[in-house]
Amino acid sequence: MTTKLPEAVRRLSDELAELPGIGPRQAVRLAFHIISLGKNQIKNLSQAVDGLAKLNICERCFFPTSDESGPRPHKGVGVVSSDQTLCNICKDKNRRQDIIMIVEKETDLISLENTGKFSGRYLVLGAMPKTGMLEEWQKLRLQNLKSFIEKNFKGKAEEIILAFNPTSSGDFHASLLSKELLPFAKKISRLGRGLPTGGEVEFADDETLGSALEKRS
Amino acid sequence: MTTKLPEAVRRLSDELAELPGIGPRQAVRLAFHIISLGKNQIKNLSQAVDGLAKLNICERCFFPTSDESGPRPHKGVGVVSSDQTLCNICKDKNRRQDIIMIVEKETDLISLENTGKFSGRYLVLGAMPKTGMLEEWQKLRLQNLKSFIEKNFKGKAEEIILAFNPTSSGDFHASLLSKELLPFAKKISRLGRGLPTGGEVEFADDETLGSALEKRS
Repeated sequence: MTTKLPEAVRRLSDELAELPGIGPRQAVRLAFHIISLGKNQIKNLSQAVDGLAKLNICERCFFPTSDESGPRPHKGVGVVSSDQTLCNICKDKNRRQDIIMIVEKETDLISLENTGKFSGRYLVLGAMPKTGMLEEWQKLRLQNLKSFIEKNFKGKAEEIILAFNPTSSGDFHASLLSKELLPFAKKISRLGRGLPTGGEVEFADDETLGSALEKRS
Repeated sequence: MTTKLPEAVRRLSDELAELPGIGPRQAVRLAFHIISLGKNQIKNLSQAVDGLAKLNICERCFFPTSDESGPRPHKGVGVVSSDQTLCNICKDKNRRQDIIMIVEKETDLISLENTGKFSGRYLVLGAMPKTGMLEEWQKLRLQNLKSFIEKNFKGKAEEIILAFNPTSSGDFHASLLSKELLPFAKKISRLGRGLPTGGEVEFADDETLGSALEKRS
């Protein structure tokens, strides 16, 4: 599929095929489609990609955040500096910093935040590796959380919520992490399980129905 | 899903969600994933997108082509100039210009070209609209082909091959186009139908088996 591709098409489709959920054929189709959008739209897209490089990562929860405090030397994504880069959630004085929700993905944080029902802070830990062993940078994020708790709350946060998916893999990682974090929180919890709103009893699987029965209220 | 997205993430995910086969949620996930790749990789990707703007479109077959004839004023994608921009296939003196294969997508051209069995030229006509009515720019491409045939081959090409998909939609468009192009070619053909190599008789559908019987050799 690659012999006769124009170099620019090959280059972009190679990059796109590295992204999650985009296969090599879709990558080539996307590249040709982008060409067909015309020069202005190509410029828009490349600038939009470029804009991501200007984001900083919150030093407390690791969620990407726009730096809106005016111009200052750019420090690169994720670089920790002495003047703290904090996201709007971590900066918010009305949110409890001693109730911490650990999420895997940034999009999980967005979904949870959109419920408007959580007034603590987050920690974005990244997708859990299939091996069960955390990556080095994930260990650093956990270490960062532990230091934060030790420094600010004498070693015990009020609650740590492990907001992993209700899957066997999520259960597995939650049980590992809850052991590790037990010394650092008065309470470790997970998201509630039961029937999803709008769902039907008839079509719920056994596990879900079982949880719904156990957690009935 | 969009309330708390950092502006740069929102901007890129809006652009990505416009691309074929990428939904709004995948677009947001992709944006966060790209951030996690780090500054250098973000730069690479934006430059790769940008590189597409430097491609020209072959004025004969409308396939994107790198302009390798040295620096000259940039004319923008698809702009026709007096010094002709031709792709390597259209430039090739060993390929017959009077045998023309009409394809829908650039990727169709690549797949056909990779067979190494075709030594004519192509015309990229773009995806056929569901309505059956060609877009204005598609009509222009056809007109361009007709003028080319009139000018170079006294109004009759040797053969025009309609390489549309063997689907009911492809059949429909092929029948429309073959009427329109009949005056411009000695022969109008379509790709052969039958059992795909490696396929099994038992699992072939009725239509395919029927074609395989009709076209037995």
